[in-house]
Amino acid sequence: MSALTLQEAEDRTAAGLAKAAEMGVAMNIAVVDAGGHLLHFSRMEDAWLGSIDIAIRKARTAAFFKMPTAAIGELSQPGGDLYNVEVTNGGLVSFGGGLPVVAADGRVIGAVGVSGGQVSEDTVVAEACLV
Amino acid sequence: MSALTLQEAEDRTAAGLAKAAEMGVAMNIAVVDAGGHLLHFSRMEDAWLGSIDIAIRKARTAAFFKMPTAAIGELSQPGGDLYNVEVTNGGLVSFGGGLPVVAADGRVIGAVGVSGGQVSEDTVVAEACLV
Amino acid sequence: MSALTLQEAEDRTAAGLAKAAEMGVAMNIAVVDAGGHLLHFSRMEDAWLGSIDIAIRKARTAAFFKMPTAAIGELSQPGGDLYNVEVTNGGLVSFGGGLPVVAADGRVIGAVGVSGGQVSEDTVVAEACLV
Amino acid sequence: MSALTLQEAEDRTAAGLAKAAEMGVAMNIAVVDAGGHLLHFSRMEDAWLGSIDIAIRKARTAAFFKMPTAAIGELSQPGGDLYNVEVTNGGLVSFGGGLPVVAADGRVIGAVGVSGGQVSEDTVVAEACLV
Repeated sequence: MSALTLQEAEDRTAAGLAKAAEMGVAMNIAVVDAGGHLLHFSRMEDAWLGSIDIAIRKARTAAFFKMPTAAIGELSQPGGDLYNVEVTNGGLVSFGGGLPVVAADGRVIGAVGVSGGQVSEDTVVAEACLV
Repeated sequence: MSALTLQEAEDRTAAGLAKAAEMGVAMNIAVVDAGGHLLHFSRMEDAWLGSIDIAIRKARTAAFFKMPTAAIGELSQPGGDLYNVEVTNGGLVSFGGGLPVVAADGRVIGAVGVSGGQVSEDTVVAEACLV
Repeated sequence: MSALTLQEAEDRTAAGLAKAAEMGVAMNIAVVDAGGHLLHFSRMEDAWLGSIDIAIRKARTAAFFKMPTAAIGELSQPGGDLYNVEVTNGGLVSFGGGLPVVAADGRVIGAVGVSGGQVSEDTVVAEACLV
Repeated sequence: MSALTLQEAEDRTAAGLAKAAEMGVAMNIAVVDAGGHLLHFSRMEDAWLGSIDIAIRKARTAAFFKMPTAAIGELSQPGGDLYNVEVTNGGLVSFGGGLPVVAADGRVIGAVGVSGGQVSEDTVVAEACLV
């Protein structure tokens, strides 16, 4: 069974940090394993302190449900199937910036979570981590 | 690099307390440093006990994201970019009454959080702290 | 019934801060009411950040049990009557530096909690708050 | 005022990881800033999952009190001045493996926390981070 290595986490983070620097936004980037446990984390200078926790929770949320955090947000709105699911699991994040890492065999082996800019910017950096 | 001193925190709180007394509302006023750590706190007689925690969280929220708490609230509504962000960081407050303290050099060196009245009143008192 | 006012809390804190400055130790000083709810807090520049929480918990502990925190510590040791009572109430502090504030009529109307130096220093500053 | 950069955190972590690899122990290494906020984190393959949280708390504890975690542990034993201080601040760690990072000007600018092996091994790796 494939697993996310620390080296791969570092490489994915480096790709995200390069994208963030290019965009001029100070980001927090977290990488977790398939169990949602923290594997690697980096905070750029001057990034919002409140985004440390958000980045880690985005990654954990994406790993816990094997889907992008934004997909959960579509269901957690008032009237939605998963209304207020964010209060479970000690606090989930359901807006964009968390993406599962999928191995060649199709298994979810972990996730990345990015926070520090607009949600659209977080999402772009998270996607850069997955290239 | 500038930093918020206890003396400045006391002075800002005194300005807020004077405004609150003038308005006839019993307020809680918290001041935190750039890291969101409590520096000073005052509760007026008869202020709501539930507002102690809210004032401190408003200040921390404003320091953590370097913006007014109300700006976060605009984004955290249903359908918004940051829906339910309040469940992160052990509990954020996203309505008005938390404002960052910005130094002459433009850096955020801390924040004030005010709670005890209507949100519009909390905001007026928080602004009085920043004069 | 007598109650601790914000003015009295400020005055007691000022007395403690003066003593701390005289001793050359950076302290955190918390004052709570009879219900253990925060009334006033001050942190001196360069005081340990970990002592913010300890000062507040010392004050709350002293108010909750109407006795000095050190008196609880005598009972909470291994084999003692209150062994590990510190894990209750979301976290109590049972070493010196928390003292109840007693009104002229003998009622406990609140408490002070001091943290930032050696426990013996914290205790001296807490006593200075009560003069 | 000096501050810990992400680059310095990465370099210190790399030094610790190299030492851990040499010793053949799978470690978690956390680096926090002066405010105790996470700056960088790495977990080696097969490291204990329970050590993620311990490494982060060790770093935070060392930053919060500007001293090695082991120095706190000497005081927090039964009968000691700081007995059960571990229950404060949401959970402190008072055994070895957390060390403050001190700048050339003598100020504590952050801390490292290492967990994954025997405490003596954690301490050796933490020291390697500071070289």
